[in-house]
Amino acid sequence: MLKALAANIEAWLTESRTRILTAMQTPVSVATKTGRNDLVTNVDADNQAFLVGKIRTAYPQAKIEAEEGTAAKVTDLDGLVFFVDPIDGTMNFVKQRANFAVMIGVYQDGAPLYGAIMDVMRNELVTGGPSLPPALNGQPVSLPLDRLLKDGLLGASGPMTIHNYLNLGDIALASSGARISGSAGMEFKAITLGQLVGYVSYLQPWDIAAGMAIGAGFGLQCSRPDGQPVDLLQAGVVVAAMPQAHAEILHRMQAK
Amino acid sequence: MLKALAANIEAWLTESRTRILTAMQTPVSVATKTGRNDLVTNVDADNQAFLVGKIRTAYPQAKIEAEEGTAAKVTDLDGLVFFVDPIDGTMNFVKQRANFAVMIGVYQDGAPLYGAIMDVMRNELVTGGPSLPPALNGQPVSLPLDRLLKDGLLGASGPMTIHNYLNLGDIALASSGARISGSAGMEFKAITLGQLVGYVSYLQPWDIAAGMAIGAGFGLQCSRPDGQPVDLLQAGVVVAAMPQAHAEILHRMQAK
Repeated sequence: MLKALAANIEAWLTESRTRILTAMQTPVSVATKTGRNDLVTNVDADNQAFLVGKIRTAYPQAKIEAEEGTAAKVTDLDGLVFFVDPIDGTMNFVKQRANFAVMIGVYQDGAPLYGAIMDVMRNELVTGGPSLPPALNGQPVSLPLDRLLKDGLLGASGPMTIHNYLNLGDIALASSGARISGSAGMEFKAITLGQLVGYVSYLQPWDIAAGMAIGAGFGLQCSRPDGQPVDLLQAGVVVAAMPQAHAEILHRMQAK
Repeated sequence: MLKALAANIEAWLTESRTRILTAMQTPVSVATKTGRNDLVTNVDADNQAFLVGKIRTAYPQAKIEAEEGTAAKVTDLDGLVFFVDPIDGTMNFVKQRANFAVMIGVYQDGAPLYGAIMDVMRNELVTGGPSLPPALNGQPVSLPLDRLLKDGLLGASGPMTIHNYLNLGDIALASSGARISGSAGMEFKAITLGQLVGYVSYLQPWDIAAGMAIGAGFGLQCSRPDGQPVDLLQAGVVVAAMPQAHAEILHRMQAK
C-alpha cells in the first residue's frame, strides 16, 4: 500500500507542478486572508481542487485537511488522513515566482506514513517516511548530521525571530546563522538535504505534515516548545531539528 | 572595451564554477577568520588566485581588491579597479553546498562599469552595468518594479535584523517579509530578478561591487543609512533598494 501511495503522490505532484507552471503564464489573482501578508491566489485554489479530487478518487475513505478550506475540517486523526498544502510560500509564489512548494503528508491513525515536498521551480521532489529513507527525485540522500546548534544553520520564522519570541532571536544568534526563506516546505527540504540543522516557526498542520513524515525517516525531532508532541489538529509553534540542536533549542526557549 | 571585459569575466566565472564543482568532490578544509561564523576555505583561496591571475594577465594595469587578502590593499579608486569575491556566502558553501556566489565588479575611476554574479550551484550568471541592461545567462530580464516597501520582500542581515540595529527589524516587519539568505550575491541576484525590493547589511567592498554595478542598469539605489554614497574603500552598512523602498528605509532608519 505504501509503495502505491508514494507512486500516486509523486505522479500527482508532478502533474500539479506542470499545472502551476502553466497557470503562471497568465496573470495570477491575489487576495489576502487573515492579514496583509497572508495571501491566497487562484492557483492555490485550483491546485488544491486538483489534488483533493485525486485523493478522493484514489482513497475515498480518507480524510483530507487542506489549506484553502474547501475540504471539511478534520476533527480527529483516526484512519487515513491526507494533509495538503497546494502552494506553501504563497508570498514567495506571488513576489518571487520561486521558493514555494506543493506538499502532501499522509498519516495513519495519527502516525506518519509518507511525506512529499515538491519544489516547483527547481523541479526537486523530496520524499520519505518512517520506513522510507529520504530521497531527492527518487535518489536516496545522505542522512543529515546530528550537529550541535552552534554548528548548524537554523531556519526560522521572520516575525518570531525579530520579536525574539521564545528567545528565537537569541537562539538564531547561537547557531551558525539564521536563514529565513518564507516557506516551510523550503525549510523542511533544506533540513532533509542537511543544509539546515532545524527550523522553528508557527505552523499550521499542512505546513508541517509532509516534513515531519519525511523527518521520521532520519531522526528529525518535532515538538512544541515545551517538548509536547505536535498536534496535527491545530496550529502552533513547532521546533523541528536534529536531536542535539532540538534539545538545545528547547532548553534555550525555557530560559529566563 | 566593455564588450571584451564582459566576455572575459563571463569566461572566467564559467571556468571558476567548474573548478569549484571539482574542488567540492574532495573534502574542503575550513578555517575561521574574524570569528566563529566568518569562514574561509581552501576553495576560496584557490579560486581567488585563479581569478586574480586571469585579471593580472588580461589587465596588467588594473588594481584588484579581493576578499582573501593575497592582493595588495587598494587605497584609491583611480583607474580600473576589479573587486573580487571568490566565494560569497562561505558559510552556505560549507554547510549547504548551495546558495553561494562568485562575484566580480569592475569600476573605472570610482564609477561602475560592469558586474557579474555567478550562482554556482544553479549555474545562473547575472550580469549588467550602467550601460548594459541586467541579464540572466545572457538573456535580458524584466526590469525590477519600483515597489513600495510594504509591497516587497526585503533581504536582510540576520544579526542586524535580530538586534533591530538601525531599526532593521522594524523595517523588515513593515515590508512584505524578511528574507535572510546569508549571501550578498544571492540577495543582489534576487533584487535583479525582481524577487526582493532591497537588501540591507553590513558589507565589504567585494560584497557590494558587483551588485551595485549591475543595479546601475536598472535604477537600484545604493547608499549608507544616512544617504551618503557607498565608499568602495571601506566596509559599512549598505542600503540597496529600489527608489521608493530605499527612501522609506532611510526614513525609518533615522526615526527615533
